[in-house]
Amino acid sequence: MQRRVRYRECDPMGVVYHAHYVDWFEEARTEALRDLGLPYAALEQDGVFMPVVDLAVRYHHPALYDDLVEIVTTVSDELPTTRVRFDYRVFRDGIEKPCCSAHVTLCFMDAETRRPIRAPKRVLETLEEVLGD
Amino acid sequence: MQRRVRYRECDPMGVVYHAHYVDWFEEARTEALRDLGLPYAALEQDGVFMPVVDLAVRYHHPALYDDLVEIVTTVSDELPTTRVRFDYRVFRDGIEKPCCSAHVTLCFMDAETRRPIRAPKRVLETLEEVLGD
Amino acid sequence: MQRRVRYRECDPMGVVYHAHYVDWFEEARTEALRDLGLPYAALEQDGVFMPVVDLAVRYHHPALYDDLVEIVTTVSDELPTTRVRFDYRVFRDGIEKPCCSAHVTLCFMDAETRRPIRAPKRVLETLEEVLGD
Amino acid sequence: MQRRVRYRECDPMGVVYHAHYVDWFEEARTEALRDLGLPYAALEQDGVFMPVVDLAVRYHHPALYDDLVEIVTTVSDELPTTRVRFDYRVFRDGIEKPCCSAHVTLCFMDAETRRPIRAPKRVLETLEEVLGD
Repeated sequence: MQRRVRYRECDPMGVVYHAHYVDWFEEARTEALRDLGLPYAALEQDGVFMPVVDLAVRYHHPALYDDLVEIVTTVSDELPTTRVRFDYRVFRDGIEKPCCSAHVTLCFMDAETRRPIRAPKRVLETLEEVLGD
Repeated sequence: MQRRVRYRECDPMGVVYHAHYVDWFEEARTEALRDLGLPYAALEQDGVFMPVVDLAVRYHHPALYDDLVEIVTTVSDELPTTRVRFDYRVFRDGIEKPCCSAHVTLCFMDAETRRPIRAPKRVLETLEEVLGD
Repeated sequence: MQRRVRYRECDPMGVVYHAHYVDWFEEARTEALRDLGLPYAALEQDGVFMPVVDLAVRYHHPALYDDLVEIVTTVSDELPTTRVRFDYRVFRDGIEKPCCSAHVTLCFMDAETRRPIRAPKRVLETLEEVLGD
Repeated sequence: MQRRVRYRECDPMGVVYHAHYVDWFEEARTEALRDLGLPYAALEQDGVFMPVVDLAVRYHHPALYDDLVEIVTTVSDELPTTRVRFDYRVFRDGIEKPCCSAHVTLCFMDAETRRPIRAPKRVLETLEEVLGD
């Protein structure tokens, strides 16, 4: 996913404030799921929440105001049981080394009971197809 | 309400990014309502939402990183029927002229039907007491 | 400009939190200026800041999670002297009435002295061309 | 540091959106440094930036709207050479188990050259005193 760095995301050092990358990861995985035919909004309508259970980010070099950044998202290649992990690398236009790398783990939760559940069948079937190749 | 300006709130000009003042207004009116004995969380538990219907902000001079700012909140002195208006002035420590002045209007809404409603009795009674003096 | 509503932008009412629209206006005017050949990043490199001096927003009906919203930006049709005003209307996909309308006024400022200045020549010339028709 | 959970920080699940905890960590370490006599604003005035180089967060259970949360900050007990690590635990009022635990590592950087530097003498001396006991 490509994305433009906004003024409101930059701090007095003139670079992207570190917390905003986490927002980008939401955007990137939402679009990655949509591309797989699994829009998150539809999962919620089916009564499934996917809260974040952990994340880790490493900042290698700064992204700057108005940069066009590319966020590359990868789903971990194990089929999820109760959790699913996404890996991210953020690239500034024209620079080979990522400026940021990260992962975010989400679990599946019943929206009603707020208890963890196993990955819904439609998620498993979609990922099986993608990862099965 | 006093509040410290945070690094994440400051932009490459080294001053508070304009949109964040709107966040401060939520904080200030929440604490003003709590001080009146009307915690917003309790209103929501009673099935009342208070969405914002309009706002206007004028920025007079910038607030800076790590400033201790004072947000002065005033409830408009008419009893609300379907809407209530809050006026704000933001002061930087030691400077008489406000750096920002604003107002935010909220309405009352039934959380279930999502339709506008009249001000709940407990809101009216509290404000009558405050404004009646 | 089209934009997807993100989860982090939605509040417990399930709708976009009011302050985030102001972020969208920055995005929309940045892209509008870029389309006119006036990227804001280039103005800053020329030593010009454009701080926001006032804004006003009216919320007509809520935008929801994952909505594809269209933000329509109009530059006021007077040539700016020291200030320039942008008008915005936000549309939810498939709904004719805007869910939000607003304006934001910015001034021109010398980045070095932090004093207001007149609109730079390149801004005037570009807007003259656009508005002159 | 104590802090009230704000409406704008809560998402459609009715809980704090995961990215906002990272904002709280900035607040908590800023106040922890101030308490040690090392206000970050003063470090910047001395030409020292402290960008974040990595962070990791684990979310154990959710914090809710209007919760009074306590963020406990610990500086790692090794004297920093080029980096300093802060550990955080976030507690909801009245619940013993933290709802969130995390660490954030920052480096020291020359504000002019934007190159990493060793921990400034005033930082070392202060931490030596604190950790030396």
